[in-house]
Amino acid sequence: EQTRLGMGFRPNGCLASPQETLMGKYGDNSKLIYELQDQGGELLALRYDLTVPFARCLAMNKITNIKRYHIAKVYRRDNPATTRGRYREFYQCDFDIAGQFDSMIPDAECLKIVHEILSDLQLGDFLIKVNDRRILNGVFAVCGVPESKFITTCSTVDKLDKMPWDDVRSEMVGEKGLSPEAADCIGEYVQLHGGLDLIEQLLQDPKLSQNKLAKEGLGDMKLLFEYLTLFGITGKISFDLSLARGLDYYTGVIFEAVLLQQENDHVEESVSVGSVAGGGRYDGLVGMFDPKGRKVPCVGVSIGIERIFSIMEQRVKASGEKVRTTETQVLVATPQKHLLGARLKLISELWDAGIKAEMLYKKDPKLLKQLQYCEDTGIPLVAIIGEQELTDGVVKLRVVTTREEVNIPREKLADEIRRRLEPCSLSVQSCLTL
Amino acid sequence: EQTRLGMGFRPNGCLASPQETLMGKYGDNSKLIYELQDQGGELLALRYDLTVPFARCLAMNKITNIKRYHIAKVYRRDNPATTRGRYREFYQCDFDIAGQFDSMIPDAECLKIVHEILSDLQLGDFLIKVNDRRILNGVFAVCGVPESKFITTCSTVDKLDKMPWDDVRSEMVGEKGLSPEAADCIGEYVQLHGGLDLIEQLLQDPKLSQNKLAKEGLGDMKLLFEYLTLFGITGKISFDLSLARGLDYYTGVIFEAVLLQQENDHVEESVSVGSVAGGGRYDGLVGMFDPKGRKVPCVGVSIGIERIFSIMEQRVKASGEKVRTTETQVLVATPQKHLLGARLKLISELWDAGIKAEMLYKKDPKLLKQLQYCEDTGIPLVAIIGEQELTDGVVKLRVVTTREEVNIPREKLADEIRRRLEPCSLSVQSCLTL
Repeated sequence: EQTRLGMGFRPNGCLASPQETLMGKYGDNSKLIYELQDQGGELLALRYDLTVPFARCLAMNKITNIKRYHIAKVYRRDNPATTRGRYREFYQCDFDIAGQFDSMIPDAECLKIVHEILSDLQLGDFLIKVNDRRILNGVFAVCGVPESKFITTCSTVDKLDKMPWDDVRSEMVGEKGLSPEAADCIGEYVQLHGGLDLIEQLLQDPKLSQNKLAKEGLGDMKLLFEYLTLFGITGKISFDLSLARGLDYYTGVIFEAVLLQQENDHVEESVSVGSVAGGGRYDGLVGMFDPKGRKVPCVGVSIGIERIFSIMEQRVKASGEKVRTTETQVLVATPQKHLLGARLKLISELWDAGIKAEMLYKKDPKLLKQLQYCEDTGIPLVAIIGEQELTDGVVKLRVVTTREEVNIPREKLADEIRRRLEPCSLSVQSCLTL
Repeated sequence: EQTRLGMGFRPNGCLASPQETLMGKYGDNSKLIYELQDQGGELLALRYDLTVPFARCLAMNKITNIKRYHIAKVYRRDNPATTRGRYREFYQCDFDIAGQFDSMIPDAECLKIVHEILSDLQLGDFLIKVNDRRILNGVFAVCGVPESKFITTCSTVDKLDKMPWDDVRSEMVGEKGLSPEAADCIGEYVQLHGGLDLIEQLLQDPKLSQNKLAKEGLGDMKLLFEYLTLFGITGKISFDLSLARGLDYYTGVIFEAVLLQQENDHVEESVSVGSVAGGGRYDGLVGMFDPKGRKVPCVGVSIGIERIFSIMEQRVKASGEKVRTTETQVLVATPQKHLLGARLKLISELWDAGIKAEMLYKKDPKLLKQLQYCEDTGIPLVAIIGEQELTDGVVKLRVVTTREEVNIPREKLADEIRRRLEPCSLSVQSCLTL
């Protein structure tokens, strides 16, 4: 349990704290403090991801049909490795589609969204690996792995992105107790990757094509690739049989997005992140929480926003450019003393007009200090109001970068600020065609 | 520990769950599940509010200067009363200004923000009560309450909004052991409320004006009202000596916003909420968490968004109008079978153009079903693509409410949807003046 500052986050403190931290702060209300050790003897644990609580929540609330995103903290009793963007308390960003639908349509949408996010964030080249648990299980079956060992074998295959095949093989034979033949057979399959061509090839595979599960999986995989072709994103999608995902609850398609190039200049600082997004289909999870076992098929994706932020922070650090932490459009400033009242009145007018305005919380700040604050924080405009401006009924609007100054009639100030700052964006056309 | 659906929230599941809920879902990763009972024997508790964790976080990160808002869940081991908008797990929305600044400037900004929020939400008439802990303590002192009983007396005064003075008085004399004279003396003061006039009156008060703390508090209160006058919001602010706030950590100005009228038609359903926002100055809290006891003065406000949502849900229920849960601008629909591909291609084009588009996750949905879906969910437009439209290179755009239909050249569809939906808002002027 630890706090941290991440790009774009404000320091907001931890969710759980030592009890004594909260004691003696709430007067008579202290009895309402929610201690975790003893909730009527219940053993509680913090969520590990957003998927299981989501599934449980659908079951509890009898929701059979929903599409939603969720950005929130999850907790791992892990050794933090901040340089690799790993924390004990960190944000995840999930997107899930729950409901009984026609095959692979929501699944394709999830991949489209991952593709869109990673493209828009310009994180460099990336690859989305796709596989299907049914295909993996089919492979295990035709390789003679007993069904009881499917899940644990899966966890081992999952390590292929971190260790070479030989080590994975020896873990299979050693720890997991598979026969060397089974391991070698698996090895032949899990080292394959490609696209529609590979799917077709495996559909013709004498062994695999005989396995019901594998055939189902391959059929859906083919369908998925057709949809992804229509979405125009197959260029960055790879059907990769080594992808296993370490979680038990997946039942169908699984996927994982990895960044392909890191900035290898200044090795010292460079953030080594592997997977930045992952997910898949979990059709059985909701049923596990429903008293009557009613199933709600789900497919979802989790975006590793903390890792993505680590990379972006890295980029920014390298580029040396400053990141603004506020959207403040204008600083209300005064050039002489005894004008706090004037500042308060003007900023209030700007706030009421919907302008994002700030002022220094000092009675008589020096003008230089006020201008310096804009330089430091990246506020683009300064609205200066002094004796002269007050008598003339104007405000001196100063552009911080160019230092250009122009007097604006006070009643026109808000519009002028907007005119100078608001990117007219796409709604320009709509405006102009009015 | 319980989930609920609130207006505008998606069902996202709880943060903490029984351990068994999480078991057998994460394969080899299960060892990372963060159990709460035994973190090295640490006794953990969930945050009661956002203020204490924020203060702790400033101390831990040595932050001496920040302004931030935070919307997150807090936890109370309370008996839920959903009709009154009280839950064990609920959202709070806090805004705080931390740092050493000139007197009452940030404090006034907090009240301005509360005033703005409650006005914009149109929750009906409201009143913001303001008081100062130093004034209250001054009152206690001049009434002969021993300093050791200030905090507990404060908690009792705080109950004045729920029980009549006589009951509060007897709790003071009975449970809290104040002398009847002290209680009566307090009674004379805490039943006073007004504006600048009352402040002036108390500054002349023979007893109170002799008390250093009270004088400080009254001086700042006068300053505050001057600033609030410049903000033009004194109309809804009342200096009310009965306001105490039950929390220990306040050191200066305190405030609380209450709604004045409830909908008393259909008593059955009407939500009775009292306070919808509250806050104050807490200059000592950060120091309590700093190893060296370094102080960071803070003032902040907490908006009771759940209570506010209860009222809004109530209003909506009463009005009978439907609330949209999505911002979807257009549904991509097909009139004949075997056009799933066409839908996927078109929706992908719209997504890439930044349009919020949906489609039914079915291979061959009936057109009627697709139109019905728009009626149910409030999607304003339908982009219909059939054989004819495909050959003509157009899309039939249908307005759900008017049923008007018009063919749009496919490449112009995104702009047309935007033109019809995007409120040109204030940026119109800026556009037109380009």
